[in-house]
Amino acid sequence: MRYQDCLHSIRQLNEQFRHYKSIESLFELDQWSMLPAEGAAYRQQTAAFIGEQKNALYCGDQARRVADFLSGVKLEELDNDIDRALVRIFRARYRNAVHTPVDLLREYNLMKAECMNAWKQARQAQDYGIFRPYLARAFDLKKQIALSINPDAPAFETLVGMTDEGLQVQEVSEQFDRLKTGLRSLLNRLQTGHAPETVPIPDCDPEQMERFAQRLARELGYSSERGSFNNRVVHAFTSFMGPRDARVSTYRNGSYNLIFTYLHEAGHAMYASGSSQEIIDAGLWGGVEGGFHEANARFFENMVGHSRAYWSHYYPQLQAELAPFRDISLDAFYAVTHQVRPTPRRISSDEVTYSLHAILRFELERDYFAGELSADDMAQAWNDKYEGYLGIRPQNDTEGVLQDMHWAGDYIGYFQSYALGNIYTGQILQAMHEDIPDMDARMARGDLQPIYVWMQDKIWQYGCCYTAGELMHRLTGTGLDAQPFLEYLERTYGALYGIS
Amino acid sequence: MRYQDCLHSIRQLNEQFRHYKSIESLFELDQWSMLPAEGAAYRQQTAAFIGEQKNALYCGDQARRVADFLSGVKLEELDNDIDRALVRIFRARYRNAVHTPVDLLREYNLMKAECMNAWKQARQAQDYGIFRPYLARAFDLKKQIALSINPDAPAFETLVGMTDEGLQVQEVSEQFDRLKTGLRSLLNRLQTGHAPETVPIPDCDPEQMERFAQRLARELGYSSERGSFNNRVVHAFTSFMGPRDARVSTYRNGSYNLIFTYLHEAGHAMYASGSSQEIIDAGLWGGVEGGFHEANARFFENMVGHSRAYWSHYYPQLQAELAPFRDISLDAFYAVTHQVRPTPRRISSDEVTYSLHAILRFELERDYFAGELSADDMAQAWNDKYEGYLGIRPQNDTEGVLQDMHWAGDYIGYFQSYALGNIYTGQILQAMHEDIPDMDARMARGDLQPIYVWMQDKIWQYGCCYTAGELMHRLTGTGLDAQPFLEYLERTYGALYGIS
Repeated sequence: MRYQDCLHSIRQLNEQFRHYKSIESLFELDQWSMLPAEGAAYRQQTAAFIGEQKNALYCGDQARRVADFLSGVKLEELDNDIDRALVRIFRARYRNAVHTPVDLLREYNLMKAECMNAWKQARQAQDYGIFRPYLARAFDLKKQIALSINPDAPAFETLVGMTDEGLQVQEVSEQFDRLKTGLRSLLNRLQTGHAPETVPIPDCDPEQMERFAQRLARELGYSSERGSFNNRVVHAFTSFMGPRDARVSTYRNGSYNLIFTYLHEAGHAMYASGSSQEIIDAGLWGGVEGGFHEANARFFENMVGHSRAYWSHYYPQLQAELAPFRDISLDAFYAVTHQVRPTPRRISSDEVTYSLHAILRFELERDYFAGELSADDMAQAWNDKYEGYLGIRPQNDTEGVLQDMHWAGDYIGYFQSYALGNIYTGQILQAMHEDIPDMDARMARGDLQPIYVWMQDKIWQYGCCYTAGELMHRLTGTGLDAQPFLEYLERTYGALYGIS
Repeated sequence: MRYQDCLHSIRQLNEQFRHYKSIESLFELDQWSMLPAEGAAYRQQTAAFIGEQKNALYCGDQARRVADFLSGVKLEELDNDIDRALVRIFRARYRNAVHTPVDLLREYNLMKAECMNAWKQARQAQDYGIFRPYLARAFDLKKQIALSINPDAPAFETLVGMTDEGLQVQEVSEQFDRLKTGLRSLLNRLQTGHAPETVPIPDCDPEQMERFAQRLARELGYSSERGSFNNRVVHAFTSFMGPRDARVSTYRNGSYNLIFTYLHEAGHAMYASGSSQEIIDAGLWGGVEGGFHEANARFFENMVGHSRAYWSHYYPQLQAELAPFRDISLDAFYAVTHQVRPTPRRISSDEVTYSLHAILRFELERDYFAGELSADDMAQAWNDKYEGYLGIRPQNDTEGVLQDMHWAGDYIGYFQSYALGNIYTGQILQAMHEDIPDMDARMARGDLQPIYVWMQDKIWQYGCCYTAGELMHRLTGTGLDAQPFLEYLERTYGALYGIS
């Protein structure tokens, strides 16, 4: 095998892998929006079949020959960034596919449905005890899988690396400690400041709210040629269906929060569908998974969508189109959307406390996989952490350890990404401000084009060619750094609460 | 290889084949409802990849060994009906997969998109000349494919057999001649009768109409657990996504015609999702393709949905829910929905003339493949047939030969199925009347349960285990027979037009 043949084989495998992933995305979208109850069992079989085909790609002769050829090759020796990315990603997929014992994977997949059912029942009964054995089983199987893939690393290290490629648990922990300290200090100081007065905002007609939020998503730059909206799901998400096809799914709701949901998902979608043609041809489209994808979403949700500049342009339009806002001033709206108030639920939390929810979940997982926390103690440890970090104690298990489906739904070793996303947004904002000093003035005129162009140019075009770390180095010259995000929060909330 | 191993292999291949088909169904649904414009190119690649995987199933060693083992085996010798069906269907899929030259198939698939584009342009320009070379190319490639699959049969015979398994062109032609003669005679006599007075029916609120039509589909027996509605497509269709998952797609419309569209698609859906567990386990679910599937849809659209008994129950409800009907009597509504009026468009034609549209298209195809008609003469031949059979001449090519996307969209050798569907409905109705003599009285009380149970018991449970011919023999003791359908029309329209 020659170098070019090897690269050609990788591209072929990549292409087929992406086709399978695209089908899995369509399955997910269908499952949450249109799949009828009795269709679920067969769909699961079809999905399992496709999953096996996808895995088999990397267990065949072609992949083995590629892996053999590459065994002595160093990434630094390769011709260009795309080749390096192809080889890097091939190695990860090959490693995962050939080292995960088929029986273990089957056992895990079979118990997943039971695990989700147990979670639902436990939630209903507000009783973690029902879910506890399933949580233990899911975590332990996940641990075995991680140790099969890499026997030389702690399981949690491998799992975190599978979500946030290239990051070490140690590095994440350090930045999380800085972030945690900064956030708790800010929270304490905000309590000494003057919380701006807020007014209740009534719900609007869901259809009007949806229309307005969709228009805003379009005006960020999310093109109707590259995606479509679906309002039938329970939890909003974005599907990456193809290099120029990223779909935003939301629920129907009259709350103004729907606007931020749309801006968030539009961020995911624009990132996912903004790769250059060269990157698409290499099968590297769609963006870096984990925290960095989240960052692209949260950047539009928060750095753009929560900014006063943004609303100084859009708020009069909101008032014109949605009657309930006519009697609410921009200041009052800004105050409501910047209300800092610890709650037990991550999903409805404010910009300041949000990361703490993610960090404490990351720490619980880390402690579990290190053997320092058992499933028996999880609910208690959860509540203790909430009390310690946020000053509130969940009233019951449903409000606490059972609050979301992540652990029941195979999102294990995933929580760090939500806080990493915030950290990255701070770094992205800083870099963008340097390049576009009049960014706020432009936003206030409704001119979002420079932001779109910058993101396209600096981030989106590269798809998943670089890891998040590599991208941050290209953008800022440094790696993961919580400081800019903390500074952004200090600026924004300090001014509002009169503590700066 | 032993017999049981052979059957096991067939079941495995079947299962995988069905998974791919299910994915193709989901692609189709997505394509017509949510796929964004720029997503089309990649989706086509993914679909092509899946198509190749599906084809490859039958080109591998496993399939070859099965085929070798079966080479001397006669269907009559097999243990039971399911085994016979498995072997019969395996042989057809194997034959199609291994005998279709890959290059030819690729050439055809690549020209399909161009062909559709040319059709759209031609339609716009009302100029068949634009589409003519593409039609010729599509038909000729299709002919080559058919001759590759079976060099010993005329191409049209093979193509018709691929849609309506087990039927001979000769047999179809004979019944079509009977049907044509009967229909033209009826049409002539209706013109001597008294056409009942009709009133214009204004359009309703699309949302109300949709809600009403969906409820009617539900009350036929189409369960919300086994399917869902999608109202985003341009042409209504049903997707067969899994053994208990058949989705009805429609457009938004305030016309009462939407009701019949829903009843039609619900018929497809109930058939597709009504197989017994044994049939599902064998991968034989979903129903007989072609004319017999159409029959299940048209039975609910026409034999049930156009009957006076049905509306004597539902019309008061229609009046109560949709204001425009309040001033229209049941008699007037019945007259409007039974208006016989030849038009150039199949899709909007009445129950009496409908089959003539299909028959004349079948004849045009038959003549083309027999070398008796060229692409150059197609538009003219089309118009001549319309004038001869229906007494009207299309005003232009868009109204005529370009009226639908079938020939541009790979539906070649397919048109017979629309008229066959009607013939079968007559036979089904006759058999059902014998078993349920008080069927009309039951319908008039809104009791559709006996019809559902009969269909389930006599037809749906068997999935595609039997060919349409085998099913008809089981139901009626005879093969394809146009007579009962003609008698049904004579009864229904004779009474209404006062000619009986």
